[in-house]
This record gives sequence, structure tokens and C-alpha cells, in this order.
Amino acid sequence: MSDDHEIRRRVLQANLELVRLGLVIFTWGNASAIDREHGIVYIKPSGVDYARMTPEDIVPVRLDDGSVLSGKLRPSSDTATHLALYRAWPRVGGIVHTHSEYATAIAQAGVPIPAQGSTHADYFHGDVPVTRSLTKEEVEGEYEARTGDVILERFGQNQIDPIAIPGVLVDQHGPFSWGVTVEQAVMHAGTMEFLAKMFVHAAAVAPRQRRVPSFLLDKHYTRKHGPKAYYGQKPH
Amino acid sequence: MSDDHEIRRRVLQANLELVRLGLVIFTWGNASAIDREHGIVYIKPSGVDYARMTPEDIVPVRLDDGSVLSGKLRPSSDTATHLALYRAWPRVGGIVHTHSEYATAIAQAGVPIPAQGSTHADYFHGDVPVTRSLTKEEVEGEYEARTGDVILERFGQNQIDPIAIPGVLVDQHGPFSWGVTVEQAVMHAGTMEFLAKMFVHAAAVAPRQRRVPSFLLDKHYTRKHGPKAYYGQKPH
Amino acid sequence: MSDDHEIRRRVLQANLELVRLGLVIFTWGNASAIDREHGIVYIKPSGVDYARMTPEDIVPVRLDDGSVLSGKLRPSSDTATHLALYRAWPRVGGIVHTHSEYATAIAQAGVPIPAQGSTHADYFHGDVPVTRSLTKEEVEGEYEARTGDVILERFGQNQIDPIAIPGVLVDQHGPFSWGVTVEQAVMHAGTMEFLAKMFVHAAAVAPRQRRVPSFLLDKHYTRKHGPKAYYGQKPH
Amino acid sequence: MSDDHEIRRRVLQANLELVRLGLVIFTWGNASAIDREHGIVYIKPSGVDYARMTPEDIVPVRLDDGSVLSGKLRPSSDTATHLALYRAWPRVGGIVHTHSEYATAIAQAGVPIPAQGSTHADYFHGDVPVTRSLTKEEVEGEYEARTGDVILERFGQNQIDPIAIPGVLVDQHGPFSWGVTVEQAVMHAGTMEFLAKMFVHAAAVAPRQRRVPSFLLDKHYTRKHGPKAYYGQKPH
Repeated sequence: MSDDHEIRRRVLQANLELVRLGLVIFTWGNASAIDREHGIVYIKPSGVDYARMTPEDIVPVRLDDGSVLSGKLRPSSDTATHLALYRAWPRVGGIVHTHSEYATAIAQAGVPIPAQGSTHADYFHGDVPVTRSLTKEEVEGEYEARTGDVILERFGQNQIDPIAIPGVLVDQHGPFSWGVTVEQAVMHAGTMEFLAKMFVHAAAVAPRQRRVPSFLLDKHYTRKHGPKAYYGQKPH
Repeated sequence: MSDDHEIRRRVLQANLELVRLGLVIFTWGNASAIDREHGIVYIKPSGVDYARMTPEDIVPVRLDDGSVLSGKLRPSSDTATHLALYRAWPRVGGIVHTHSEYATAIAQAGVPIPAQGSTHADYFHGDVPVTRSLTKEEVEGEYEARTGDVILERFGQNQIDPIAIPGVLVDQHGPFSWGVTVEQAVMHAGTMEFLAKMFVHAAAVAPRQRRVPSFLLDKHYTRKHGPKAYYGQKPH
Repeated sequence: MSDDHEIRRRVLQANLELVRLGLVIFTWGNASAIDREHGIVYIKPSGVDYARMTPEDIVPVRLDDGSVLSGKLRPSSDTATHLALYRAWPRVGGIVHTHSEYATAIAQAGVPIPAQGSTHADYFHGDVPVTRSLTKEEVEGEYEARTGDVILERFGQNQIDPIAIPGVLVDQHGPFSWGVTVEQAVMHAGTMEFLAKMFVHAAAVAPRQRRVPSFLLDKHYTRKHGPKAYYGQKPH
Repeated sequence: MSDDHEIRRRVLQANLELVRLGLVIFTWGNASAIDREHGIVYIKPSGVDYARMTPEDIVPVRLDDGSVLSGKLRPSSDTATHLALYRAWPRVGGIVHTHSEYATAIAQAGVPIPAQGSTHADYFHGDVPVTRSLTKEEVEGEYEARTGDVILERFGQNQIDPIAIPGVLVDQHGPFSWGVTVEQAVMHAGTMEFLAKMFVHAAAVAPRQRRVPSFLLDKHYTRKHGPKAYYGQKPH
């Protein structure tokens, strides 16, 4: 992933995939990937129309100080949130932020997405957590960096492994997701939206909220992840 | 925007975009733009199939008295509502009316769309208000002009800046939106529909209605609007 | 409408339009039109794939006794319902039956679609009514003819003009709609589905059901229908 | 159905149809068909992208012991569930498993899909049942085979004919459906999703759950199935 052109192509592709999956309307979303070797994060430019975006429009910023390395476009306004997560979580290779319809609605309600079934357990080893609200001082200061901080605070407090729970709802804002690759981060964004939809639908017919038992969480998660995984094809 | 052909092309494009965004089915919607220099409003013809509409079908009407300036087609039956808003609000350059599914449902419920998150705050600096019901006399008289009046009454009573809150729900009818340009008016129509969807979804899982604090409203709004905006690319 | 080929083409087109509008999945729907001069109803064949249907597949049946006039295909299993309505209502020129998602759900709930806004009033001059349940005897006998009877019973009891209320929900079954032409019947099917969607969405945020006042019903209806109509273009 | 290539083509087609019908996103679903003569089940490979799947990728496994007969791809991780049902139910020719949005949400809620209307009765001669939860021992052991067992347990306890009720919700997991052919199994998957959607929508406007009387269940079912069927065209 050290090849500058290849990573730009993948980040562009990930951003377009968000639109194709119906997770992003207008310009409401962004995907990034990191080149850990050189400490460079590649992210969507701010407010640019997806239909006209090229690999050259993807903005490279330094992981350490967020400065733009080349090009004339501003990076996504959410860049500081991405950087905070990349700095804290060395295994994360890609990050996605959307305002996808159902996940954002749940974030606005301020509740977690409960682990209600095997679809959830296949990708999230427990509830998708929701952060606390940001304070007035946090919002009026370095808002996007502080958004990263409340995510990290939530994962730290509950001792959550970000690889096992690859997403979060930021209260009154919306979903962030991530993965070892940016393609995984996109898939986790799509999965979160799907889980949010099912949460809403189930609430209509069964007001009492149910959760899967921990052994089902473990089974589905280990069926897909780790040394005992048997879902999908063997790696080549 | 003084070029007659160019403004017709843009108004046609805006009307087609409403269909493409899923905000209009059948012929249930209309978009207009104003040429302030000549005092002419260009609006969709009434009840014409979108698939066959050309720039020449867009109807130019006088801002002052609503008379049709050229062509054989009738303007949208909602023209008088558009004119009332253009007359009262000199900064508005484009207006859109739709019967989009969720926003219209909320209008039928007769409640505002509460400001529940950052998606809302990015475009609307507070709740999307709902008008009062029209009286029997208002409905039976110049109904469409009176529809404009109750919108203006609502914004006047609450001292709302129409540029900061670029949309409204007319009680038991549906959404109107506007902007400095007709393209903005379309985007605000799409945003209102999206906010209405999230309002419905959030209600399913969290009956207690939440609103964002005013400092979050201010932050997101000023991030995108005014001299301190840092969302999107710098204007050329 | 006496030209056999032209009416077949229109009925085929109407059936395909139901699919295009998302009102029919699989083969769950049917549209018909009547040639009043010759007393012939043209209706979709039963259980035939839409993708392969041609004008020659449309089945002509006699209005008086329902016998098939030509061709080898069986008419829609709902033909007797269509015939009952055509016989009772001489102004009706086309009929549509679907299992569209939301309208059918409301029919399963067994409640009318309340007139909650101007979108409703533009096409339905009052609630979309729901029939009573069929009795065991009615279901086990000539079921489809009896389905027509309970529709007629409902309109007769409430003295409803079928042109002013061009649709109904059959309890625990689904929507039927009609119009002066089959194209109108299709549009009314689409409108009923849209109204049903808004009914469901509004219920989520405002449990108390509202209805529009009669003067708004009258205004919107007469704006589109009758001698004082001013929506759409003047007839040529 | 003994021709190896033809059955591979049909199983591929069935899997692609699940995507086209919106029942499967990502790789979340699988369809299989059985060659009863040779005791071979043909099933989707695990975790392979639908866009690149060819008939040669479909995996043939032995009905008796589940061993793979040819090729290098692993069969779907749910293969043991399919096998359990094929072994118990000799009339079943095709099986489908999806995580379709609404049916899965109802499975997560842990309730059956009630028979609320004629759409339901046309394909399911009673409620779509839900299984009991699997125990810790069942989940940690041969999980997928046990999933088949709880389905069979549910049908055995309630003495349900799997041809008359061609689908089930596995608690906290999702829907399985089947049919005499794999094409029927796909249609039943689509029908279950549609019924689940209507269940959710009806709950919004009428909290009290209704069910159709048994004579309506019988009428619609026998209208489509068995010697007295009169829906669709006569078999050639």
C-alpha cells in the first residue's frame, strides 16, 4: 500500500462505493486510507462532487500534524477525526464516515445498536457503542479532533478492541467505521447501516429489546475471524 | 442569471433533479428561479410530464402581478406561493415545492422537524418549522397566495431568517424549500426529506425527542456558512 | 377505445407500468380496461411473467358472463372482481389490483387510509375506505365475485361516488383502484400506495390521527377535477 | 435435474436472483438445489463475490456426509443446515438462506410472521414459524447442523407440512425458505421478506395484531396449490 497512485485509486474507489451502496447522498461522507510506512493519510477532498472526483483529487495529509502534502484541494472537514483514530489504533488501515440514514437516526436518538442477531455478530463482537455528547468547550474548540477523542474515550472506558468492534455512533452526529483496510471500513459502514435498519424494524413489532447471548456472539465472530475461521475461502 | 435561455435550462434541470433524487413522483413538485434584474420568475408548467419537458416549456411570469410573459402553457398551480416568497425575501433566488414522502407525512402530522443532529445543523440553523392551518376563508379564496402568507407569518412571528432556515412544512400539505440559487433550493428539499426520514426512524427506537444544543447548531452552521466556513473548497 | 389492438397495447402498458412504479412484484397484480361499445373487458392473463407478456396475451372476456372471447390463456384469477365493478359503475374505464406493500399492509390492519393532507385530497375526495371482511360462505363460494360485492356494498352504504373516491382496500386482502381510463387507474394505485406510506410514517411521530377539514378536501379536489379545475394544461 | 451443468446453472441463477430481488447484500445468502437421483447437493461457495461467480464455482457436496465432490472452493458455511433439511424432507428440491432486511429483523425480534392477509395465504398456509433459540452446547458444537435440527424440531412439534409452510425464521439469525425447486425457494424468500415488511408497516398503524380466518387461508392456498388450483396457466 506504499504506492501513492494505488492508494489514491483505492480511496477514490471506496468513496464511490459508499455512494453505490446508498450510504452517502450529496457529499455527506468520506473515506480514507493510511500509508503507515510513510505516515501519510489519503482522504477525500471536502465538498467535491463524487461524479467528478479523480485519484489526483484525493488529498494526502501527514499523520503527525495533519498538514497537506500536495495538491490544491482541502481535505475533508472531518480529517482531524480520522487522524485521531489512526494515531491511537495502529492496526487500523482505513476509516469511513457517513451520514447513512438509519445509523445516523440512531446516533441522533443517542442509543447504541444492540447486538440482536447473527448478522451483527458476524462483524461486530458486541453492541455498536455510542459516544457521550461533546461539551460546549469541545464543540467550540477543535471540534473534529475532539470528536476523535470522545470515540477513543468510549473505547478506552469500556476496554473495547477496535478491530472486534469496528464502528461507533457519535452522539447527535453519525457513524464512523474502520477496518484493517479501507475496503473493510466500507463494508463495516454498510453493515452498521443494515443493523440500524433492522433495529428500527424490530422495534416496531417487539418493543422489548433482545440481545444475543455471548456464546452466539463468540461463535459467529470466530466463524469469520481469527485462526478458527471457516467462513469464506482459504487465503492463497 | 439574466440570460433567458440559461435560466430556463437551470429551472428545467432543477425540476428533473427532484425526480432523480426521488423527491417527486408523477408531476407532484415544482421548482422555480428568479431573474431579479427583470423581475421575472421562471417556473415549471402545471401537470406536464417530466420526461417530455424542454427549456421552452418553462413558464416566465412577472414577479409583480403573476401574469405569464410568453408561451402557451399554464404555470404551476403553486405559482402564487412562489411569488409571495420571492416578494418578501429578496435574497432568495430559487424555490422548490415537493410532496416528498417523509417530509409530507410530517407536514400531515402537523409537527416541525426537530434539529436532532449535525446533518440538520449543517443546513438548517434550528427546527424546520410548520405553519398553522389555513382557515376556511383562506382556502376558499386565493388559496395559493394565502399559503405563501402563512409561511411568511410563521417566519415573521418567530423572527426566522429564511436564509438560515431554508425550508418549511405547510400544515396538512407539504414542504417548501428555497436558497440563494435554485440548485440550493433543490439540495434543501433533499435535505429536508432526509431529516424527515431520520425523525421517523429515531422515533421508533427512542420515543423521547431530543434536540441538539445551540452550540452544536452554531458550530455546524458556521462550519458551512459565512466568513468562518471551512467545509468544501475555497471559492475561486 | 374500440380498436382491439390499441386497447390490448394500453392494458399491457398499464400492467408494465405497475411493475415500473414498484407496485407489483412477481406476478402480484393486474390491470384491465373495458370496451363499453362491445361489452368486452381486456385483462392480464393469470400468472404470466411480465417480461414476456405481449399485447396478444391480454385476455378479452365478455362483460356479461365473463367468458373468454379468444386466445388460450386464462384471465387473471381476479377477473370476476373487475367485472362486478365494471357492471355497477358505467363511468369506470379501467381497473387495477395490486398487492402494493404499504396499501396491502393497511388492508391487513383493516383500517381506512385517512385523508390527512392535500396529496390525498388531490385524488381522493375523502378517506380511502376499507370493506368488511368476507364471510366463510362468501369466501368458499364465488370468492372473487363476492369480493366485488363487498366493495359495492361499502360504496353503496356510504353513498360514495366511485369517481370521487377511485379506490378501496379490501379487508385482509389489498387495494383495488379504478378510473375513467386504465392509465388513471394506474395513477390512483400509485397514489394509494403513496398515501399509505405517509399514513405509516406519520403514525410514527404523531400517534393522534388527524384529518383535513372538508373545505380543504373540496378545494384540492375541485382544483384538479370538474369545471373549475385549474391544475394541469387546458384540454386541447 | 440430473444434468450436472444444468443444475449448476440454475443454482447460480438462483443466487444471482436473490441479489437482484434485494434479498442479499454483500455475500449474505446462499441457494442450493439437490439432485435426488445421485444424492448430490449443489450450493453456493462461501464468501465469493456474486459478480464473479460462474456455474463452475457452485460446489457439489454429498447429501449423506457433506463431503465436497469436486473443485477447490469451500461450500457455504451454512451447508450443514441445508443438508439436514434435504435429508428430512424428500419433496424439497431447493433451499435458500438470506439475511433479508425485514425477515431478519423479525427473526431478531423472535416472533413469527402472522398470517395477516391473502398475500400470505397465497404462499404460506399459516404463520411463518420461528424456531427456539439454540442452547450454548448447540452453538458451540456443530452449530450449522443444529440449526437444521431446531428447524426440524419446530416443524415436527407443530406437525407442519414443509410444502405448505415453505419457510421459517431461525431465532436471532434469519430466514430459511425452500420449495419443490430452487426457483420456488427463491420466490418464497422474496415472499417472506414482503410479508415481514407488511407486518412491520401494519404494526405502526394498528398495534392489535390480526390474523386471517382459516377459511381464507384455505381458499387462497387451494386457489394456487393442489388439484383445484385455478391461479396461473394450466400446465402443458
